[in-house]
Amino acid sequence: MKILVINCRIYSAEYELIDMPSEEVLGRGKIEKIGLKTSSITFRHGRKKEKFIEPIMEHAGAVHRIIELLTDAEFGVIKDTKEIKAVGHRIVHGGNKFYESVIVTDKVLEDITKLISLAPLHNPYNLSGIEAIKNLLPGVKQAAVFGTAFFRKMPEHAHYYALPRRLIYQYDIKRYGFHGISHQHCLEQTAALMKKPSAKLTMISCHLGWGASITAIKNGVPVDTSMGFSPVGGLMMATRCGNIDPGVIVHLMRKGWTLNEVNTCLNRESGLLGVSGISDDMREVLEAAEKGDKNAVEAVDMFCYLIVKYIGAYHTVLGGADAISFTAGIGVNSPVIRNKICESLKVLGVKLDAAKNKKAVGQAAKISSAKSKIAVFTIPRNEVLLIARETARLLG
Amino acid sequence: MKILVINCRIYSAEYELIDMPSEEVLGRGKIEKIGLKTSSITFRHGRKKEKFIEPIMEHAGAVHRIIELLTDAEFGVIKDTKEIKAVGHRIVHGGNKFYESVIVTDKVLEDITKLISLAPLHNPYNLSGIEAIKNLLPGVKQAAVFGTAFFRKMPEHAHYYALPRRLIYQYDIKRYGFHGISHQHCLEQTAALMKKPSAKLTMISCHLGWGASITAIKNGVPVDTSMGFSPVGGLMMATRCGNIDPGVIVHLMRKGWTLNEVNTCLNRESGLLGVSGISDDMREVLEAAEKGDKNAVEAVDMFCYLIVKYIGAYHTVLGGADAISFTAGIGVNSPVIRNKICESLKVLGVKLDAAKNKKAVGQAAKISSAKSKIAVFTIPRNEVLLIARETARLLG
Repeated sequence: MKILVINCRIYSAEYELIDMPSEEVLGRGKIEKIGLKTSSITFRHGRKKEKFIEPIMEHAGAVHRIIELLTDAEFGVIKDTKEIKAVGHRIVHGGNKFYESVIVTDKVLEDITKLISLAPLHNPYNLSGIEAIKNLLPGVKQAAVFGTAFFRKMPEHAHYYALPRRLIYQYDIKRYGFHGISHQHCLEQTAALMKKPSAKLTMISCHLGWGASITAIKNGVPVDTSMGFSPVGGLMMATRCGNIDPGVIVHLMRKGWTLNEVNTCLNRESGLLGVSGISDDMREVLEAAEKGDKNAVEAVDMFCYLIVKYIGAYHTVLGGADAISFTAGIGVNSPVIRNKICESLKVLGVKLDAAKNKKAVGQAAKISSAKSKIAVFTIPRNEVLLIARETARLLG
Repeated sequence: MKILVINCRIYSAEYELIDMPSEEVLGRGKIEKIGLKTSSITFRHGRKKEKFIEPIMEHAGAVHRIIELLTDAEFGVIKDTKEIKAVGHRIVHGGNKFYESVIVTDKVLEDITKLISLAPLHNPYNLSGIEAIKNLLPGVKQAAVFGTAFFRKMPEHAHYYALPRRLIYQYDIKRYGFHGISHQHCLEQTAALMKKPSAKLTMISCHLGWGASITAIKNGVPVDTSMGFSPVGGLMMATRCGNIDPGVIVHLMRKGWTLNEVNTCLNRESGLLGVSGISDDMREVLEAAEKGDKNAVEAVDMFCYLIVKYIGAYHTVLGGADAISFTAGIGVNSPVIRNKICESLKVLGVKLDAAKNKKAVGQAAKISSAKSKIAVFTIPRNEVLLIARETARLLG
């Protein structure tokens, strides 16, 4: 059966049509810069990469174009939308409501809507994809797969902050964790490469992309993760600052900053961009660092240093680890960053195979040397596959 | 020569009169609950502990009573204030201005005053001690010893946050670190116990008191510390939350909280008190936990868990450590907490000697077993001695 997976984000919508259970990808593409006149649609047609520029002002329109493309006379991969058996969506925040994937009902839609205040930059766009399909393909089953669900079994000392208890009950303040679909996929793929059941794998999963988070997994179950209540927490990211001393926020506001100014600064002007002053794209920051730009060097140093601290902390709380895996854009494409991180993990017995590390770009590979005490892997991000599997599973 | 050390905090003032260079303590005492009608003065007189209850409404009055007591006909330890050669003060925050101890001049006073906005709960009270002595003992030299100075050589990736650069220059936002005098003393005492020069010691110093912080020290130089811009950051403490996801603050304020409400919550209602719902005193929380109180158990778990994560992180960035030392109230007095922490450090090769750990209460001791890969110590907090040494050094 054919399952369409849609991932609507704030300015983009990605789609993939997958045949299950063969897991063959029938078509995929991406719409970017939604809301601008220069929105782009990119997808492959045979061996050719096609790109259209056309104004797509909202997510409903983007999903409409996706459906048109899938059934297009020239570029399409199916003849009729009736071939789409179900649609799976990534929903960033499941709050305290959703601890596993669900088939979307009106009640589910209502509950996800209630969670918008917890993830105002993510859930509304995720939801818009569901709404669009509901209008375009009425009757087609939809599944919601949550980025937070993977973390449901984290122990209490990792699930909560050192804040008054009432904040949990009155304001839903806890460490939800994010990128759960990616971390779960990273776990499963690492287990497959190690020929080990994932339930017996203790590992540290490093999702290093535009957003970034690290998860400590003990015998297949997450016991801690760096992102917390919101996607701004934990590690330094492309434009987000990660965890900081709350006193910084209090100080800035006492100096006259508004809450929105603070929020914009921490979410969009910090991280790699803020420290380097150059770019939110690690490739550009690395390039500047190689040319000797002091701020770029420091941005790269800080990015890696904070990751090393999390890996060290998680290695200790796990009581050792079988594997460390790098996934998402930077994780899977930057041998330089992986090398810089692993150089600082020598005391844990981590040793990369330089040639294998260099070669592993955009692919699944073992990159540690035979002498390494902990196996190190690159795992390409593939949340879509996991969403398709979850959707197929729910259809029964 | 006799040096008086004064530590004025928000509600208290401690003093100690020390003969240098013999380091003999001639007298010491504490005034608590300043600002209340039930202020107390406690000190020792011979073998007896004396305690007066009398209203002391401000710090100037407290320092005045200290001077009176020191020269009191019955309880005094000196005949004339002229015997006091100099007065040393603990100043919590030296900002970007003070990277080492200084003799107080009008310019120094002015500069410390400018730093008040960085440590509004600390510096004003520290300063009041200097002002009081200036009025009471005009002409006596005073020294300011800063809690942040120890951290001056931290590398940039640990000194700054992943925030836009301009926040460093425009708003002085960086990781200053605190408890520096205590960490430095802990380093020196650990080195003495190990019969090693402190410049060759790589260690993790755990200051666990009402406030708490952990410092990674490489060859005698701090390379990272858990407290940052303000004393609320880093670890969970008695009533402070430590580092959290900034999204929590944004969320609470969007739900209608004022900045002051948030600040009070994070500084005074969180930490052990907030999680246990019982007390900000570890002894009381432990007692409740032993009786099975679920929230108390979790508060203790979380407190230790966060410490274990910092130790794991610092062990990794240090590339191993010679020693881990516990100082300050909880650190030096709670074998239970130390044991709980070290039980989670097995993967680092840490092994306590159960009997030695149990016995080490309020004293300097080695508490690790002969088999431990990392030596573990208890070091009683003694910032006063370090302040006296610094003051004597500055007098030349």
